[in-house]
Amino acid sequence: PAKAMKGRRLRWTVKPSEMSINTVNPIRSIVDEMKLTPHPDKPMIALSIGDPTVFGNLPTDDAVLQAMKDAIDSHKYNGYAPSVGYATSRQAVANFYSCPKAPLEAEDVILTSGCSHAIDLVISVLCNAGDNILVPRPGFSLYKTLAVSMGIKVKFYDLLPEKEWEVDLKHMESLIDDRTSCLVVTNPSNPCGSVYSKEHLQKILRVASRHCVPILADEIYSDMVLPGCECPSMASLSSDVPILSCGGLAKRWLVPGWRMGWVLIHDRNDVFGPAIRQGLVKLSQRILGGCSIVQGALEGIFNNTPQSFYDNTISLLKTNAEICYSGLSIVPGLRPVRTSGAMYLMVGINMDHFPDFQNDVDFTERMVTEQSVFCLPTSAFEYPNFFRIVLTVPEEMMVEACSRIREFCEGHYQPLGLDGNDLDQ
Amino acid sequence: PAKAMKGRRLRWTVKPSEMSINTVNPIRSIVDEMKLTPHPDKPMIALSIGDPTVFGNLPTDDAVLQAMKDAIDSHKYNGYAPSVGYATSRQAVANFYSCPKAPLEAEDVILTSGCSHAIDLVISVLCNAGDNILVPRPGFSLYKTLAVSMGIKVKFYDLLPEKEWEVDLKHMESLIDDRTSCLVVTNPSNPCGSVYSKEHLQKILRVASRHCVPILADEIYSDMVLPGCECPSMASLSSDVPILSCGGLAKRWLVPGWRMGWVLIHDRNDVFGPAIRQGLVKLSQRILGGCSIVQGALEGIFNNTPQSFYDNTISLLKTNAEICYSGLSIVPGLRPVRTSGAMYLMVGINMDHFPDFQNDVDFTERMVTEQSVFCLPTSAFEYPNFFRIVLTVPEEMMVEACSRIREFCEGHYQPLGLDGNDLDQ
Ligand SMILES: Cc1ncc(COP(=O)(O)O)c(C=O)c1O
Ligand SMILES: Cc1ncc(COP(=O)(O)O)c(C=O)c1O
Repeated sequence: PAKAMKGRRLRWTVKPSEMSINTVNPIRSIVDEMKLTPHPDKPMIALSIGDPTVFGNLPTDDAVLQAMKDAIDSHKYNGYAPSVGYATSRQAVANFYSCPKAPLEAEDVILTSGCSHAIDLVISVLCNAGDNILVPRPGFSLYKTLAVSMGIKVKFYDLLPEKEWEVDLKHMESLIDDRTSCLVVTNPSNPCGSVYSKEHLQKILRVASRHCVPILADEIYSDMVLPGCECPSMASLSSDVPILSCGGLAKRWLVPGWRMGWVLIHDRNDVFGPAIRQGLVKLSQRILGGCSIVQGALEGIFNNTPQSFYDNTISLLKTNAEICYSGLSIVPGLRPVRTSGAMYLMVGINMDHFPDFQNDVDFTERMVTEQSVFCLPTSAFEYPNFFRIVLTVPEEMMVEACSRIREFCEGHYQPLGLDGNDLDQ
Repeated sequence: PAKAMKGRRLRWTVKPSEMSINTVNPIRSIVDEMKLTPHPDKPMIALSIGDPTVFGNLPTDDAVLQAMKDAIDSHKYNGYAPSVGYATSRQAVANFYSCPKAPLEAEDVILTSGCSHAIDLVISVLCNAGDNILVPRPGFSLYKTLAVSMGIKVKFYDLLPEKEWEVDLKHMESLIDDRTSCLVVTNPSNPCGSVYSKEHLQKILRVASRHCVPILADEIYSDMVLPGCECPSMASLSSDVPILSCGGLAKRWLVPGWRMGWVLIHDRNDVFGPAIRQGLVKLSQRILGGCSIVQGALEGIFNNTPQSFYDNTISLLKTNAEICYSGLSIVPGLRPVRTSGAMYLMVGINMDHFPDFQNDVDFTERMVTEQSVFCLPTSAFEYPNFFRIVLTVPEEMMVEACSRIREFCEGHYQPLGLDGNDLDQ
C-alpha cells in the first residue's frame, strides 16, 4: 500500500484490488495453462464441462420453457421483485422442498442469482475474515474461491475414494477449531458423483452437532441420483444442527444459464434466530436476486414438469455411468470409482504405471493431443491423479470416448517393477 | 471475536458476519422505521418507489418481450454463458453504446446481474479496504452500502441545488487524497433528476485527471433526458481519464426485475491495462452474470425497440415534471428543483416554515397520515430536508398528488418571524 500522503497523485496507477487478485478460479487457472490441441483426425470430445446443455441431447422440458413464456405474457414480472424474491415464488420453492422432518415456509427461502450466489450469501453471512470453513477434497472449487477472496481460511477434509467418497470423519473432526464457522457438505457431489447414505449423513451431522458448527449443504444436485439410491436432504436428518441449504434450477432442470438459485433456511432451536435471517436479507439487498421472469416461472416449472423429464435425465446418467465404469475398469492403470448421482464419474490414474506423465494435468493434456478427449484433471479440485468425466454426453460419444481413453492408456501403460527408462533402451 | 482456543465449541452461537451487519440499506432503515398509515378516506399515492413498472402505465415494449420469447424459442440460451456474458450479447451492447469519441468492442463489455452488480464489480476491482471513494450527496445509496460493507470509506461531495445539482467542484477536489481509488458520478442523477452539461462534465473530468482518479460513471439513466437536453456519456468527453461506465436495461427499457446490467470499460492510455480487465473477469466468475435468456434477447431489444417507445416514456416524464414543478413552486414553504432527466424531482422543504415537523422524515410521514401521499425523505440519500418525487406515475395521479401536497403544506405552513407556539396559544 502506498505511503499515506495527502494531496495530488502525480501519475496514473490503477491497480486491481486485492480481492480481485485473490479471486482465483482453479479450473480456469489450470485449463488456461494447458496446451489443448486435439488430434487433427479425431473430432474433439469434451468430457470436461459441467454444463449438461452443451451437447443438445438434454434439452430442458417444454413445460419449463412454457412457464417462462407465461411469466412474460402475464406482464406481472417486469418490475423489481423484493430482494429476497417474490413471496409467491418463495412459496413455490418452499412447497417443492418442504418435507415433514424439515418443513419450509416461504420466509425460509431466499431467491438468488444462481446457486453460486446462494453459496456466496451463506458464506458471507456466517463467516468473518480470519474464520475458517471446512470443505471437501476433492470438491467444487467455488467455496474456496469465494472464501479466500474474503479473507476466510479454507480447511480441506478428505473424501475417501475407496469408500465411494465418504467423508473421513476423523479427519474432518480434527480440523474443527473455534474459528470454524461453517461446514460445507456437497451431496450429491461434484466432482465425485457420490451420494451419501442416510447413515453417513447422520454421522456428519453428529460431528457438526458435537462442535456446534452450522452446515452449508450444497444440494444443487439433489434428486439427481441413480435409480435405487435415496438422497435425503441433510436438513431432514437433523433436529439440532442449523442448516443453510443451497440449490437452484441449473442442473435438474437443465437451465444453468438462467441463474436461478436459492438458500433454504433450516433453523433449529432458534440458533440462527432472527439475526442470521436478517443478515441474509441485508446481503440480498446488495445486488438483488435472480431474474424476475424466471422467478415468475418457478411455480409453473415445479408444477408442470413431467416426471418423464426427470426420469429421462437419470436414465441417460445411468447408461453413461455404466458404459464408463465398465469400459474403464478394464483399462490397465485406471481405477474408476462408481457413481451414484450428480453427473460425474471420477477415474483414478495409477501414475506409477504411466511414467510418460508427471501428473493428472500432464496426462489429460496428452489425452487431448493424442485422442481429442478432454477430461478435467482433478488438480482443479485440490486432488491429484484423477480425472473427472461428465456423464451428460450422448451415449455414442461416451462409448467412443471410453474406447479412445483405453487406447491412450494402453499406449502409455508400463507394468509395475519395470523402469520406463530401461524399456526405452 | 471469541478467544482463540483449539477444540470443541460447547454451545451454539451463530452470529451474522460483520459484513452482513455492515451492509446497510438506508432507504430500508428509514422507511421501515416510519409509521406509514395512509388517511382512510384517501387512496394511497406512492411517489417513493424507483420502479417505473408499479403503476402499469409504463409497460415495456412488445419488441422487448418478443426478443425474450425468441431467445427462449431458439433453445440457444439455456446453458452457461461465459462469466462475462455471451460474445454476441457483449457485441450488441458495444454496438449500441459505441461512439466515435468512446468506441467500444465486445471485449470492453462485461454483462452483470443488474446495474447493482456492475457497481459491485467496479468498486470491488478498484478499491481495497482502507481506500476511499467519492460519491455525490444527495446520491444513490448503493455506493455507500457496498463500499462500507467492504471496509472502503466513503467521502461525500456536495451537489448544489441552486445550480440544478451541479457538483461543488472545489469541495469534490478537496476530498481527494492518495487513498481515493474511485470517483463516482451519477448522471442523469437519482435522486436529483439532474443532467449535467457537457461543460460541467468536462470540469469534473479535469478534477479526475489532475488527481489521476478513475471514474465510475453510473449511467443507468443515460438517454432518459427531457427533450432539448443533451446527455453525452462521460467517456465521450475525455481522452485521458479511464472510466468504467455502469448501465443496464432496468430503467430505459422498463424491466428492472430482469437484472441485466453491464460494465463498459473505457480505458485510456492503457491505465487500466490488462490488469483491471483481468480483475473484472475474475470477479465475474464469482457468481456469473445475468440470466442467459435476457442476454440472448439483448440484440433484439436494441435493434427492435421502436423510437416511439423511448419517446413515450420521455413524454410522460416531461408532462409530470411540468405538473410537479409548476404545481409545487407555488406552494408556500416548498422549493422544487427543476429536473432534466432520470425520473425524479427533488423538492426542498423550508423547515423553518413547518415548525410542526422536526425533519424531512417527520414531514413525509405526516403527509402519508394526512394525505396518503408518500414521497421519500432525502435523509435516505444522506441529505436532509428535501423529498424526492418519482415522475413515472400516471398523469392524473401526479395532478392529484400535487394538490394534496399543497393542501398538506398550506395546513402546516407558518409565516417566518412568528413563533409556532405563540400561534397555538
Ligand atoms: C456443487 C455445485 N454447487 C454449485 C454450483 C453452481 O451452480 P449455479 O450454476 O446455479 O451457480 C455448481 C455448478 O457446477 C456445482 O457443481
Ligand atoms: C443511480 C442508480 N444506479 C443503479 C441502480 C441499480 O440498477 P439495477 O436495478 O439495474 O441494479 C439504480 C436503481 O434504482 C439507480 O437509481
